[in-house]
Amino acid sequence: MSERDKFFMKAAIREAERAFQEDEVPIGAVAVFDGKIIASNHNRKEQLRDPLAHAEMLVVSETSKKLERWRLTGVTLYVTIEPCLMCMGALIHSRIDRLVFGARDPKFGGAKSLYELGEDPRMNHRFEVAEGVMAEEAAQLMRSFFASKR
Amino acid sequence: MSERDKFFMKAAIREAERAFQEDEVPIGAVAVFDGKIIASNHNRKEQLRDPLAHAEMLVVSETSKKLERWRLTGVTLYVTIEPCLMCMGALIHSRIDRLVFGARDPKFGGAKSLYELGEDPRMNHRFEVAEGVMAEEAAQLMRSFFASKR
Repeated sequence: MSERDKFFMKAAIREAERAFQEDEVPIGAVAVFDGKIIASNHNRKEQLRDPLAHAEMLVVSETSKKLERWRLTGVTLYVTIEPCLMCMGALIHSRIDRLVFGARDPKFGGAKSLYELGEDPRMNHRFEVAEGVMAEEAAQLMRSFFASKR
Repeated sequence: MSERDKFFMKAAIREAERAFQEDEVPIGAVAVFDGKIIASNHNRKEQLRDPLAHAEMLVVSETSKKLERWRLTGVTLYVTIEPCLMCMGALIHSRIDRLVFGARDPKFGGAKSLYELGEDPRMNHRFEVAEGVMAEEAAQLMRSFFASKR
C-alpha cells in the first residue's frame, strides 16, 4: 500500500464517517485527478430517497461536472468498500484509470467478490483495481453501523 | 408478446425518438406502476454531461421520487434496448418486479448478452426478464442513429 493511496483513502473514510453520522450506510468515496481530490461524497440513499445514490455514483457525476466531460480519463477513484455491480458499470462507462477500494463486499461486490467487472476482456474499457487499503478501518465502520441498527 | 407489453413499449420507443431528435443515443424507458406510466425518460448522457444519465437510471430515480420510496416493488420497467451492467445493478437495487426490453445489446447488455444479472441466484433480489417486444423498431432507431453519425 503506497502512502499516497493511504492518504486519499483516509479522505474517503472521513466521508464514510459523515454518512454514519447521517444514519446512512457508511461508505465514502473520493475522486483524484492531477494529484488532487476533485470530488468527494458518501452514500446518501436514504436522504435522497434514491436507490442509486451510492457514494461512487455521486462522485462520478460530480467529477464529470467539474471536468466538463463524461470521460474520466486520468481519474482514480477511492472508495472504502468494494463497489457493487451498478457502480462498477458506472466506472466502466466513465473510463476511469484506476480503482482503489478498502474492504471487500462478499454480498454485492462487483470488482472482486461476485464478478471481476473491471477486468472483463469483453468490455470496451478496463482499469486497474487495487484493494485492501485501510480495509480494517472501512470494515469496522460498517460493522459498527449495522450493530447500532440491531 | 402481450398487447399490454406492446402498449408500454410503444411509449418507450417514443422516448427513444425524442433522444434521437436531441442527438442522444436513442434509448427510451418507462416505468409502469398500478397499470399506468409513472415515469418516462430517455438517454441524456450528452446533454447532462453525465455518463450515468442512461434512460433506465433517470426513470428509476424519477419513480423513487414519485412513489416516495426507494423500493420499487410493483414496478415494471420497459426499455427499448437491453440494459447495461450499471442499469441492471440499479434495477436489482431498486427491487423492481419485472423488466421488459426490446432488442439485445451484444456489447454491453447485462440482462442476457454478457451477463444474466436479473437471474443471478447470489443476488438479494431477482426479477423476471422478458425480451423481444418491438425489438425491430428499437434496433432500427439505433441503426439509423449510428448511420447518421458516420
